[in-house]
Amino acid sequence: MEHYTNVRSQSNRTRTLTHTSPLEVTLQAALDAVGDPVRRRIVRELAGVPDWTRACGTFNHLPVAKSTLSHHFAVLRNVGLLEQRDEGSRRLNRLRREEFEERFPGLLALVLGEDDQ
Amino acid sequence: MEHYTNVRSQSNRTRTLTHTSPLEVTLQAALDAVGDPVRRRIVRELAGVPDWTRACGTFNHLPVAKSTLSHHFAVLRNVGLLEQRDEGSRRLNRLRREEFEERFPGLLALVLGEDDQ
Repeated sequence: MEHYTNVRSQSNRTRTLTHTSPLEVTLQAALDAVGDPVRRRIVRELAGVPDWTRACGTFNHLPVAKSTLSHHFAVLRNVGLLEQRDEGSRRLNRLRREEFEERFPGLLALVLGEDDQ
Repeated sequence: MEHYTNVRSQSNRTRTLTHTSPLEVTLQAALDAVGDPVRRRIVRELAGVPDWTRACGTFNHLPVAKSTLSHHFAVLRNVGLLEQRDEGSRRLNRLRREEFEERFPGLLALVLGEDDQ
């Protein structure tokens, strides 16, 4: 029963990761999401590594509180720019580059082309 | 003398219109500018008419105070998306479509493709 509870708990954690298709996202939401410089930096850093290799916990160098960082990841997920999944205690990330580009042509390229500040 | 004063006053009014080249604009400023739904609507309405035919005074149907409207026009001018000039008592507008597109490829198209709300 304890084992069952643990599995269920882990499963629930992943299940709370709601993902949104970029096709359902408004331009307003997309602009709000990429309007924040820390979120743009997260996106650029993720673009520099292969999918599913970078965990949320590796972004602690960014100058924001941990709770704020979690919020930023949630915002990016909610506009269809980020996919996440849990592996053990790590939450891994993948940019949804092609899907986001299809919905908002050019927007991601602008973010990726910006210099880090 | 009164005529001279009027002309001079008009001239000074135009001279206070500072314009910015899109090339000098940061992505942050551009995203902030188009992040506002009223500003995006102004841009869409201007895109629907020939350059220099639509005066600021014809935007009174938008649900914002006159002072807020002036602010919106200034923001659009300051990110290089709008050019303005005074003709008599009218302040006429032109979208700087090509210049803005060159600096921020795709961004204006996203704004123009959005449905009015």
